[in-house]
Amino acid sequence: MIGAGQLARMTHEAGIPLGIKFRVLAGTTSDSASQVARNVVVGDYRSLSDLREFAGHCDVVTFDHEHVPPAHLEALQAARVILRPGPEALLLAQDKAVMRARLGAAGIPVPRWRKVSGEPDVAVLAAATGWPVVLKAVRGGYDGRGVWVVRSTAEARPLLRQGARLLVEEYVPFTRELSVLVARSPSGQAAVYPVVESVQVDGVCREVYAPAPGISPEHALAAQRAAVAIAGELHVTGLMAVELFDTPAGVLVNELAMRPHNTGHWSIEGARTSQFEQHLRAVLDLPLGETRMTTRHAAMVNVIGGSHPDMYPAYRHCMARDPGVKIHMYGKEVRKGRKVGHVTALGDDLADCQERARHAAAYLRGDITE
Amino acid sequence: MIGAGQLARMTHEAGIPLGIKFRVLAGTTSDSASQVARNVVVGDYRSLSDLREFAGHCDVVTFDHEHVPPAHLEALQAARVILRPGPEALLLAQDKAVMRARLGAAGIPVPRWRKVSGEPDVAVLAAATGWPVVLKAVRGGYDGRGVWVVRSTAEARPLLRQGARLLVEEYVPFTRELSVLVARSPSGQAAVYPVVESVQVDGVCREVYAPAPGISPEHALAAQRAAVAIAGELHVTGLMAVELFDTPAGVLVNELAMRPHNTGHWSIEGARTSQFEQHLRAVLDLPLGETRMTTRHAAMVNVIGGSHPDMYPAYRHCMARDPGVKIHMYGKEVRKGRKVGHVTALGDDLADCQERARHAAAYLRGDITE
Repeated sequence: MIGAGQLARMTHEAGIPLGIKFRVLAGTTSDSASQVARNVVVGDYRSLSDLREFAGHCDVVTFDHEHVPPAHLEALQAARVILRPGPEALLLAQDKAVMRARLGAAGIPVPRWRKVSGEPDVAVLAAATGWPVVLKAVRGGYDGRGVWVVRSTAEARPLLRQGARLLVEEYVPFTRELSVLVARSPSGQAAVYPVVESVQVDGVCREVYAPAPGISPEHALAAQRAAVAIAGELHVTGLMAVELFDTPAGVLVNELAMRPHNTGHWSIEGARTSQFEQHLRAVLDLPLGETRMTTRHAAMVNVIGGSHPDMYPAYRHCMARDPGVKIHMYGKEVRKGRKVGHVTALGDDLADCQERARHAAAYLRGDITE
Repeated sequence: MIGAGQLARMTHEAGIPLGIKFRVLAGTTSDSASQVARNVVVGDYRSLSDLREFAGHCDVVTFDHEHVPPAHLEALQAARVILRPGPEALLLAQDKAVMRARLGAAGIPVPRWRKVSGEPDVAVLAAATGWPVVLKAVRGGYDGRGVWVVRSTAEARPLLRQGARLLVEEYVPFTRELSVLVARSPSGQAAVYPVVESVQVDGVCREVYAPAPGISPEHALAAQRAAVAIAGELHVTGLMAVELFDTPAGVLVNELAMRPHNTGHWSIEGARTSQFEQHLRAVLDLPLGETRMTTRHAAMVNVIGGSHPDMYPAYRHCMARDPGVKIHMYGKEVRKGRKVGHVTALGDDLADCQERARHAAAYLRGDITE
């Protein structure tokens, strides 16, 4: 796996029972995954020679993030390195304009959008959809970065002047955000997880509830079908997260991520096969695992860096208060606003799971003292 | 953790989410846990200087096996190394005679037994219990080694001549073998798991069913109470497995193991807190986790080395046939009769779980081809 963040850390954990000889290309020996894995290679994912050297010792190469330069992906593939997902799928995930065009052409519902070469494009879209509209960086945005809601061409002007490639899309008055995880193997098998609701604050995932509360079976099935269709259409291998807007008229695809995803962390305890094991099975072309839930409800709450530099002392209270809450820390230095861990609560009552997970996350972070 | 077998491997896996900085004292860099952990120190658990050097970098020291020489344990404790479990408890687990005496004195039901200094001791016990009787090595036996059923003093004679310290005990006509896992923390909190049935062949655990099929609530509670009482009486810290004989008259304690145990592997998926996480929580004096099952039934079957030197190719069939079966391989070289992994199946129907887990284990091993 290229990249040694928390996704690589949790993928390593999932690979242990399967006897996978997991290697990780890490920026430093103190990265999240470097702290727990045996086979850590320190190198730079922006260096083709580092990538080549690393891949030379791997049967299959997969990814913790989307930042490997496209030209390097092409060069690796040309050198017969097995990349999963492959460069075509990764490029789509890296380029929001190409991705939207491709999804639209495949009949997948997406927000109305257009590429921006100047102010008139913004005005044209707004004339059709009304204000506000959303400007998005075509490349490089994540966790709310590279997304701006604007209410007029005047508001759009300074963003257009920055020179980054942008697209503009309708502001969707969604009722909530949903996410569907789907895994697809090179041989074409797909397995889809229950639709979940995700709560984002400033574009950053804060909470996830599985399954999405109150979703109708028809609605859930439509979202799952869209996810499976996208995975097939884009020839995805490995796990893909499809983030959706829920609206009274149906679901619209917002973003794709071709890797395990924050909206799937609940699956570690909440599903028979975690998203991390599933990703490994998919990229290794092993038959996919059962996605059924192990519980009626799961609530996952991210632990965002707060006032506690070391959260370990808070375990005592959290575990004593709630012997069932599952704490996952990523070994990352605590900085304000940084995702440093997550907690999951399982049970028969969603409100109870939410309260338990929120309490543990807030206590770990240092927001509350009892 | 001293020792780098599969128990250390699975403990490392459980420590990742908690952010535990897990160090392991391994015989070689290719031991089961050495293959997957970051902090591996190669050394000899029979060398006091290796133990001292290793322990010098640990907050708490715990164990993958019972083979550390007692004198070394005492020396480490005298040097203020925090050992969990402590030497007193470990010595009991190492010495079956001391353990039986201690349990008997505490009112815990054990088979009738006596120390053997010569043939008359065997004859005296047999006069009380009838033949056959069981001779056991006081130290060093495990997985069926050091246990002999004898039908006469003549049969006992060659064993007595070998010079090893022995005890003799009644042959219990048990209906089945049960096991209870209990964790106890230094602060005295205890948490007990559901009673399970274990099936042993030639003294080696082959299968485990959780919960023990058909056990009455009163019977289960008695076994759990005995386990909690033993943990308290012996000041155990960490996980303890209490192996019991089930008889029409009630349960009798057979063996104790003061570490995670083969009869608890089902808990990785089958309980809200796995035995490995629980052991870590206990030895770190963190509040203990919920032991409730995540499913109605779990069946665990050991994968014993057979004709396949590499079991990975068999994953394809096992996973395609049963997307829910959980495979755990230990990274050990396959040798005939060696425990190299286990599989667990969860579900609402025990017979179905048993069939699924047995099929996967037999297929991995190479006994069957479809």
